[in-house]
Amino acid sequence: MAVSLRLRDIVAKLGGEAVGEVAAPLTGVGTLDSAGPAQITFLANPRYRSRLASTSAGAIIVGPRDRDAASIPRIVAENPYAYYARTVALFHPPPAVRPGIHPFAQVDGSVRLDASVQVDAFAVVAAGAEIGPGAHVGSHCVIGERVVIGAGTRLHPRVTIYDDCRIGARCILHAGVVIGADGFGQAPDQGRWVKIPQVGAVRIGDDVEVGANTTIDRGALDDTVIEEGVKLDNQIQVAHNCVIGAHTVVAGCTGISGSTKIGRHCMIGGGVGIVGHVEICDHVVISGFSLVAKSILKPGTYTSGMPLMPHAEWLRNAAHLRRLDETLTGRKHKAGDALERDDD
Amino acid sequence: MAVSLRLRDIVAKLGGEAVGEVAAPLTGVGTLDSAGPAQITFLANPRYRSRLASTSAGAIIVGPRDRDAASIPRIVAENPYAYYARTVALFHPPPAVRPGIHPFAQVDGSVRLDASVQVDAFAVVAAGAEIGPGAHVGSHCVIGERVVIGAGTRLHPRVTIYDDCRIGARCILHAGVVIGADGFGQAPDQGRWVKIPQVGAVRIGDDVEVGANTTIDRGALDDTVIEEGVKLDNQIQVAHNCVIGAHTVVAGCTGISGSTKIGRHCMIGGGVGIVGHVEICDHVVISGFSLVAKSILKPGTYTSGMPLMPHAEWLRNAAHLRRLDETLTGRKHKAGDALERDDD
Amino acid sequence: MAVSLRLRDIVAKLGGEAVGEVAAPLTGVGTLDSAGPAQITFLANPRYRSRLASTSAGAIIVGPRDRDAASIPRIVAENPYAYYARTVALFHPPPAVRPGIHPFAQVDGSVRLDASVQVDAFAVVAAGAEIGPGAHVGSHCVIGERVVIGAGTRLHPRVTIYDDCRIGARCILHAGVVIGADGFGQAPDQGRWVKIPQVGAVRIGDDVEVGANTTIDRGALDDTVIEEGVKLDNQIQVAHNCVIGAHTVVAGCTGISGSTKIGRHCMIGGGVGIVGHVEICDHVVISGFSLVAKSILKPGTYTSGMPLMPHAEWLRNAAHLRRLDETLTGRKHKAGDALERDDD
Repeated sequence: MAVSLRLRDIVAKLGGEAVGEVAAPLTGVGTLDSAGPAQITFLANPRYRSRLASTSAGAIIVGPRDRDAASIPRIVAENPYAYYARTVALFHPPPAVRPGIHPFAQVDGSVRLDASVQVDAFAVVAAGAEIGPGAHVGSHCVIGERVVIGAGTRLHPRVTIYDDCRIGARCILHAGVVIGADGFGQAPDQGRWVKIPQVGAVRIGDDVEVGANTTIDRGALDDTVIEEGVKLDNQIQVAHNCVIGAHTVVAGCTGISGSTKIGRHCMIGGGVGIVGHVEICDHVVISGFSLVAKSILKPGTYTSGMPLMPHAEWLRNAAHLRRLDETLTGRKHKAGDALERDDD
Repeated sequence: MAVSLRLRDIVAKLGGEAVGEVAAPLTGVGTLDSAGPAQITFLANPRYRSRLASTSAGAIIVGPRDRDAASIPRIVAENPYAYYARTVALFHPPPAVRPGIHPFAQVDGSVRLDASVQVDAFAVVAAGAEIGPGAHVGSHCVIGERVVIGAGTRLHPRVTIYDDCRIGARCILHAGVVIGADGFGQAPDQGRWVKIPQVGAVRIGDDVEVGANTTIDRGALDDTVIEEGVKLDNQIQVAHNCVIGAHTVVAGCTGISGSTKIGRHCMIGGGVGIVGHVEICDHVVISGFSLVAKSILKPGTYTSGMPLMPHAEWLRNAAHLRRLDETLTGRKHKAGDALERDDD
Repeated sequence: MAVSLRLRDIVAKLGGEAVGEVAAPLTGVGTLDSAGPAQITFLANPRYRSRLASTSAGAIIVGPRDRDAASIPRIVAENPYAYYARTVALFHPPPAVRPGIHPFAQVDGSVRLDASVQVDAFAVVAAGAEIGPGAHVGSHCVIGERVVIGAGTRLHPRVTIYDDCRIGARCILHAGVVIGADGFGQAPDQGRWVKIPQVGAVRIGDDVEVGANTTIDRGALDDTVIEEGVKLDNQIQVAHNCVIGAHTVVAGCTGISGSTKIGRHCMIGGGVGIVGHVEICDHVVISGFSLVAKSILKPGTYTSGMPLMPHAEWLRNAAHLRRLDETLTGRKHKAGDALERDDD
């Protein structure tokens, strides 16, 4: 299980140029601050350049600009951050799939899967599902009827996929993910709500990662679509009929309301709220904890959010926000009494 | 499983008036844009009226005002959106309950349930629980001691209900829901926290729907209460001792702090934050991603939230927010140095 | 199971001073409003002092200042709120651990655990794990390889702990918690994302409580650390490499981005967003639903968040926020057309 590599071994697999060589094989990767002599580190962010002098790492991955900034054995790579990612994977290869169906899994007789698939204890795979070669269904996963899972996809324990959803190849779904629960469709009728059956599904492309406890709802009539290469962090909510374009990343706790369409190559921060039925074009960056209430028509970086203040300052400043129009325009508005009186 | 219907079949079941008739039976429902000749569509939002001309749908559901706006075979209904919801349910009836206890479920001998109940693989139902006729407990559900589940309620896979909670009839709970975990009660004592045992429970009324991964905590001493007809979307957090009034809907990712009371027939948007111990009266609408920090005494629509801006504009504008009081009143305040200096 | 206590019994166990005595043993605890003659109540918040006159409780816990404010039998304690917490625990002791491994649990032969441990149905404990004396692993928990769980810790049903994570003693983890899923590390490379394997783990100290559906990600290279006595509410997301200092509490739905360090004895409100790579010093209080975008260098209370307004007022006021700099400084900025036109 332990992997030992010299720089020449790494370069042979990942490219780049080795400058110097380690005296003894490396056994892992560490940060500039924590790496020891048996570990390789990396410099991707120029802010950390000053830490080069003090690192105890045995070797380092640097970009072409920093070729001579370090004196220890090093690998020069065009994109040191991506190179670091691939180096970690060399030292820590993902666990091999151990083909076979655990005797305590419940796999319906009609499920199509070949001998290369791993299904763990207490997993349930329902009628008509299809699981691609080399896929791994973790313990306690529940796979609905007619679900399709692509080759090499890994479901960590406790993923639930409702009927008729499709997951691409080489995807990673983390624990607690729910794919294809009913979208939130309720029609008002005489003071009550009539459930709108959600008869679309969820289609997820290849190479998608979905973080722990994230939920992606099935569409009302058409499908909810996550295109290839999308990366979703934990605890994200994707409502029915959203489309997330290829290679877009979304950080944790973000909520995307129904029928919203996000373009390709976007970066959506954590805790962002996006209202329904808007469109965000390609190559948009949304700062964390922003609110998107309108469509975004041009690439760029967008932000909302109130600055944090010491509470006493906030109280003084916030009071003005409620009457900003009056203060700035002189227009008088009828005082509302709809909210509780300020008493703090 | 496939359902075929003509307009006269639909009207016979749901009321409304058929104008014209389809040449061949319909097989489903689609949107104005996606429906084909074998599908029925609907017009509920006048914004989409212009799409009537181009739809390929075989038939349409319209309101009385649009009776003559469409020329294809149609159903005229008072509430075309609710009619659409019911029409989808005709074409896609919910899966029938298949009575029986899976041999790999663990149902305690003291549980009261009759032969009409379905309990799926790996479900656990603890001592003293009671499950109503026609209820369906999905795979991997965990039902605590003395839990009561009403008739016809459906628990999707992987719902957890802690001891002593009560769920009404005809409820739908989606995957990952947790009902009755401990409310967050911690008493400070000499720099440490003493856990306050949460000995209330959760009571959920009839016809409630709870979305995937939503959590509803048990009360500290009294119960947390969700009244009949409430619809909760995904990833909502309802803290201990909240009361949510009948027929209120709450969209995804909203957090409701402890002991807050929300009235009947409210519509709470997604991503909303509601502080503890406030009251919101009946018939209140809260815009998505708003913060409710005070009680709301009058029906109406309420909003907070900073508008999104291109980041450079936000930087210029946000700087003023920190000194709004100073700018608008001329009062000087001691400059704080409690926060990191702006450097972006 | 039912517990009956007089004031002298309570004081014998918890200290404090009994003033008067109940005629018949008490059977539980209730609020000032709901407690009956067989229950003891408490007064911790002076706002509720006026309710003393009307309570029907049989006895009350008060602080030294309120010794004579109540006339019913009472216990005078320094910290009546913490005393109340401990009194509830006397009447409602946690369920005893029932040692043994359920025949339908899957515990690998290499797992180290003694006869005092309870493992419930359908739990999975993988190779090399170690479970301390008196711990309780609920049904459907999935415990990864080499995980260490301390003595007396309770995992409610459906907790998932990935490989190599460590949980301290006397912790409580609620249903749906996911510990140690991959941190969100993706390196951009030519328009695609390269996954950065997350090879750190999660270390959780003693006496930590984690609420339902909360997720704590494993570190990229180093560990994510939750120190002793931390209390996390439901649906919190803690990203990779965060450190949360001892005895800090975090309320529900808060998201903490990667590599952020929170001090000791902090109180973080619900729905708070904290960006990555910031530091919050000890003894900081963050108001609910605030955004923390910078490091906080001094203890105190901090707030952001726009006040809620009736929607019509919000529309008037929010329009000014987009041009605050222009209005207050007279500087002209090029009008952007990057966002959809306002039409509401």
